Amino acid sequence: MSIVPKTVNPDLQKERKNATFNSEDFALWYHGGEEKLKFKRFLESYVYDDLDEGITRFQDLSHEDIFADATKNSIILAKKLRKLQTERNPGGTEIWPTLYGSPELWGAVPSGNPFSVHFSMMVGCIREQGTDEQFEKFGKRAQNFEITGAYAQTELGHGTFLRGLETRADFDRQNDEFVLNTPTISAYKWWPGGLGHSANYCVVVANLYIDNDPKGVAMFVVQVRDEQTHMPLPGVDIGDIGKKLGFAGVNNGFLGLKNVRIPRTNMLMRHSQVHRDGTFVKSPASALAYFSMVYVRCMIVRNNSIALAMAATIATRYSAVRRQSPINPNEPEPQIMDHLTQQMKLFPEIAISIAFKLASTKLWQIYDQTAEGIKRGEFSRMPELHAMACSLKALCSSYSASGVERLRLACGGHGYLASSNLPNLYSAATAACTYEGENTVLLLQVGRFLMKSYRFALTGKPLVPTIAYLQDAIKEKSVGQWTGSWNNIIKALQIAAANKIRISYENLSARLKAGQTEAEAANNSGIEYTQAAELHGNCFVAATFLEEVTGPAARGRNPALNQVLENLLELFLVSTAMRHMNELLRVINLSDADLRSLQNRLEDVLKAIRPNAVAICDGFDFHDRNLKSTLGSYDGNAYERIFAEAKASPLNKQPVPDVFEAFHEV
Amino acid sequence: MSIVPKTVNPDLQKERKNATFNSEDFALWYHGGEEKLKFKRFLESYVYDDLDEGITRFQDLSHEDIFADATKNSIILAKKLRKLQTERNPGGTEIWPTLYGSPELWGAVPSGNPFSVHFSMMVGCIREQGTDEQFEKFGKRAQNFEITGAYAQTELGHGTFLRGLETRADFDRQNDEFVLNTPTISAYKWWPGGLGHSANYCVVVANLYIDNDPKGVAMFVVQVRDEQTHMPLPGVDIGDIGKKLGFAGVNNGFLGLKNVRIPRTNMLMRHSQVHRDGTFVKSPASALAYFSMVYVRCMIVRNNSIALAMAATIATRYSAVRRQSPINPNEPEPQIMDHLTQQMKLFPEIAISIAFKLASTKLWQIYDQTAEGIKRGEFSRMPELHAMACSLKALCSSYSASGVERLRLACGGHGYLASSNLPNLYSAATAACTYEGENTVLLLQVGRFLMKSYRFALTGKPLVPTIAYLQDAIKEKSVGQWTGSWNNIIKALQIAAANKIRISYENLSARLKAGQTEAEAANNSGIEYTQAAELHGNCFVAATFLEEVTGPAARGRNPALNQVLENLLELFLVSTAMRHMNELLRVINLSDADLRSLQNRLEDVLKAIRPNAVAICDGFDFHDRNLKSTLGSYDGNAYERIFAEAKASPLNKQPVPDVFEAFHEV
Repeated sequence: MSIVPKTVNPDLQKERKNATFNSEDFALWYHGGEEKLKFKRFLESYVYDDLDEGITRFQDLSHEDIFADATKNSIILAKKLRKLQTERNPGGTEIWPTLYGSPELWGAVPSGNPFSVHFSMMVGCIREQGTDEQFEKFGKRAQNFEITGAYAQTELGHGTFLRGLETRADFDRQNDEFVLNTPTISAYKWWPGGLGHSANYCVVVANLYIDNDPKGVAMFVVQVRDEQTHMPLPGVDIGDIGKKLGFAGVNNGFLGLKNVRIPRTNMLMRHSQVHRDGTFVKSPASALAYFSMVYVRCMIVRNNSIALAMAATIATRYSAVRRQSPINPNEPEPQIMDHLTQQMKLFPEIAISIAFKLASTKLWQIYDQTAEGIKRGEFSRMPELHAMACSLKALCSSYSASGVERLRLACGGHGYLASSNLPNLYSAATAACTYEGENTVLLLQVGRFLMKSYRFALTGKPLVPTIAYLQDAIKEKSVGQWTGSWNNIIKALQIAAANKIRISYENLSARLKAGQTEAEAANNSGIEYTQAAELHGNCFVAATFLEEVTGPAARGRNPALNQVLENLLELFLVSTAMRHMNELLRVINLSDADLRSLQNRLEDVLKAIRPNAVAICDGFDFHDRNLKSTLGSYDGNAYERIFAEAKASPLNKQPVPDVFEAFHEV
Repeated sequence: MSIVPKTVNPDLQKERKNATFNSEDFALWYHGGEEKLKFKRFLESYVYDDLDEGITRFQDLSHEDIFADATKNSIILAKKLRKLQTERNPGGTEIWPTLYGSPELWGAVPSGNPFSVHFSMMVGCIREQGTDEQFEKFGKRAQNFEITGAYAQTELGHGTFLRGLETRADFDRQNDEFVLNTPTISAYKWWPGGLGHSANYCVVVANLYIDNDPKGVAMFVVQVRDEQTHMPLPGVDIGDIGKKLGFAGVNNGFLGLKNVRIPRTNMLMRHSQVHRDGTFVKSPASALAYFSMVYVRCMIVRNNSIALAMAATIATRYSAVRRQSPINPNEPEPQIMDHLTQQMKLFPEIAISIAFKLASTKLWQIYDQTAEGIKRGEFSRMPELHAMACSLKALCSSYSASGVERLRLACGGHGYLASSNLPNLYSAATAACTYEGENTVLLLQVGRFLMKSYRFALTGKPLVPTIAYLQDAIKEKSVGQWTGSWNNIIKALQIAAANKIRISYENLSARLKAGQTEAEAANNSGIEYTQAAELHGNCFVAATFLEEVTGPAARGRNPALNQVLENLLELFLVSTAMRHMNELLRVINLSDADLRSLQNRLEDVLKAIRPNAVAICDGFDFHDRNLKSTLGSYDGNAYERIFAEAKASPLNKQPVPDVFEAFHEV
């Protein structure tokens, strides 16, 4: 690829020179301090330095070859991390397997890692749902990659409603075994990552029956392939579910089970148990079974905020080197980032990515506190954590998906090239809208939490911290005064949220009064539930962002850096307020002058961010091999890279394709 | 695929039985009468009946193999249509090549037809921009597929701003030739469909120089490959630009030219000419060169409205057969279409697809009138047509892309399967947001048209029909009274549009007064320009829909059918008003009761459409081989088809993949 210069594009050089702050300061802030940043950089260099530079070559391959490549690359990555763990801290787990799926290393397996669910879900699930002995027996082996696993919950015909799962595990008292069956096509396990050909074990979620009596959902460790030959075991029908929008390497699989027998002790029994005599002991809190899903949802908020930052980096750098359409007729074509409409496509996404990164950190704090509580047998914080994890997972996946797409479109036609890596980032970001809880289902769950909270608020019961604003908003009868300050914008969002919650509640009550069941009334209020849940989530995100920029953490921060963060906060709050203006205007009187002033603030802050946009993205500190983008590399040699990638396309290996013969037929 | 039953899913049967109207009546209306519908069905059967049933098998292949398949299938399709043309009307063109790229036949080449730009752009361009002799010489041969072509305008570094093209054609007076060059990498032609390996000629758009003096942009017919061997000619560097988000079969190409010589008479000279002695004659109206782009934009409005209807059909049928999450706890899981939030995902997209289909018909009428005018030397209607084509192209591509994606997500995880065909539909729909004029650029052009119109309105000059509402709105000082009737909603949208235009104009004026150039001021007003343009386009779409349902065309229409159309109109107007409520509330006072009543209307009309949703989609009358979807086939056997497609995946041809060897390495 000698066509790509070793120099940095002059437009990018200029951007970096003219920034008002040091992008290294930003990187230190974003990555949590010097030690973490240093290790991150070391790790990237350790993993990427000997990988070839091919940007998205996998996209040219057949599905079979993509899968084979993904498998090989995943294994190379595993070996590297394991080696590093052994060198630095033998017996520890902080590098291997903890970092196996981390966003910094996505670039090592760009089509998706067929073994990552193995670690993110299966090992964690055995740890949380299994007894300590079970973790010793299965979890440790999985953690050491001696066996490979998948987490098999979703079925072809069944998703979020777990009780509806058709897969059943019947207790055979005589043999002290469970007998597992997927009695119909729609009962087939469908979608689990790595299940197709990469796993020889899996955790199967099934309805448990004892003497044909349903006991609810439980989890079972089931061997599906021979450990030596990897052949499917008798009664096991297993394979790949076929090509998807993205994640072609992940080997999502199907699994049919026909009278597959496992020892009773393969049921994960930390919370519920089946004794030798068939006695069933219920879990003390049924929600415990969902706790590993909450974990993954917290993870999604973080990962998707990073995916959005990656796309923003690509589009922002490209917008600095691409020149198009003169602003003044006889002047040269400007950097497209100088077009106001282009700024409007780029900068709000940068702000959103940061807002949700901060929100995810805060969410992790709540998660850790809740997990601590559970260890002590306290389950009281679970509903709040569950609601906020649902809400942020839904919002972040949805905003990041539409944001990546907006950024892709902001690169014009070239964003459609696989070599921009934006299509691949999009297909990964949007997948999070449905996996681990479909977004609308999650928002409806949040809506039910909000109705319950409103009922508490009306009766003067105390509210948990993340919804405490409801109490104030009710007192103030949902009418506020607009000043436009940051605090005031957040207050306005809270009052709008409270108002939407109130309206939903009133409509729900009216429906109940009219004779609908609670469930029917909730279904008929669904649209407003989801709107209330969205506002509620945004209140949390906005307040967290404000706290980071103006609270204790900001003290002592480099002023030039904090000024940049203030601009991003201003942009986030103004654009969020404008996006929800139809709701705001129902509760707060904004004059035409107020609205014009808001538009001016929007335009002003876009201009204020303009000179720093490239430096901010530099501060995200993505490795080029992770961005994997012709448009977004650090050196900005976009055209040369597009050119080099095109020339390297397999379609161009001969001047006339073989299929040319067919031309003569017409 | 014996696993797929020959019977129709009972849930779909029930839906069809319970509809309040006849879907055949809808089909007759949608397709423009009995004769057209009959021919469409004949054509589909003629093309599809002997094609194999593989739904999206192409997605499993390598890029090379996809291209080879697309080429072969395109040629099979061409032969079929040519045969039919010869049988029915030898010498005519109404079947071949006219129908070659029509939406009904997309299913024959699902990865995209590498020869379709040849017909949609190149032949048309030679007809419009070339003299009659040139059409005889090049156009006829192209039309007969004796030569294959591409339309090469966009360059690696240059898009919508044509004057910025770097490709140059220098007149060599001595040899009576043009010498063509792409002097840099960024000057390479980039993106033309079919250019990679499918074309041996192309129309090259280049800056014309005579004695080194620039004469502006002109078009040239350039041979790029040998007609017999298909080898690139000397000086021609040509190939495929590599994998993209979609359209993997289309063979988008690059083209570098180094001192490539063509006869002077290869410049297309209908409107501008270069004489033997080097005299340059300018085109009478420079906009004429853009007229083929306007044509393609009208086409996009129609095609994208149909793509959206296809996705809506798939998602709606699937939502009738998928059962999930009980509404009442102890009842069976309902069809997901019974969830109100699901209805909100499906039905507005159905309404939007119809609204834009109707708008495209109206737009074609304006196009035809304008084209008639041009023949008489009248260019006065061109700005209005141009503005409306830009506006509707931008809105329809953008709404259809986000709509297809919303519908894809409405199918949960299974919408992520390639075999749902929704990813493929999405990648096609979203491409239209950037090709043939990037959407934001188009909306900014509309914005400039709106500013000009506002200036006219202020000075009492007459306004063209599509913007005539501006005059009224100004008179009424942009304050309206809300009644909520259909007419009133459209009026409200118009007043909101006029208000946005006024604000943009005032901001523009203030910026001009502050010393900014017209161009700078326009750039700084860009965000509001695009918002005004969006409102303006929606006013046209809404008014067209209202006219169709309540105007003369509705008289005599089957009342049951018209009731369905009324419901769709109601949904379109209510949801459009709600989407733009932040703008409406600036000009019209809606009380809290008004807003609640609007929400009630929304929920009521969703419920009213619910029993007819499947029948409406049946009325779109898409052939199964065109939908190519496991989720959306007419018989509704979704699970069985997903299952059959997965089993047929090449990844499952052996129980243990070869790459399993690598497992031992870790």
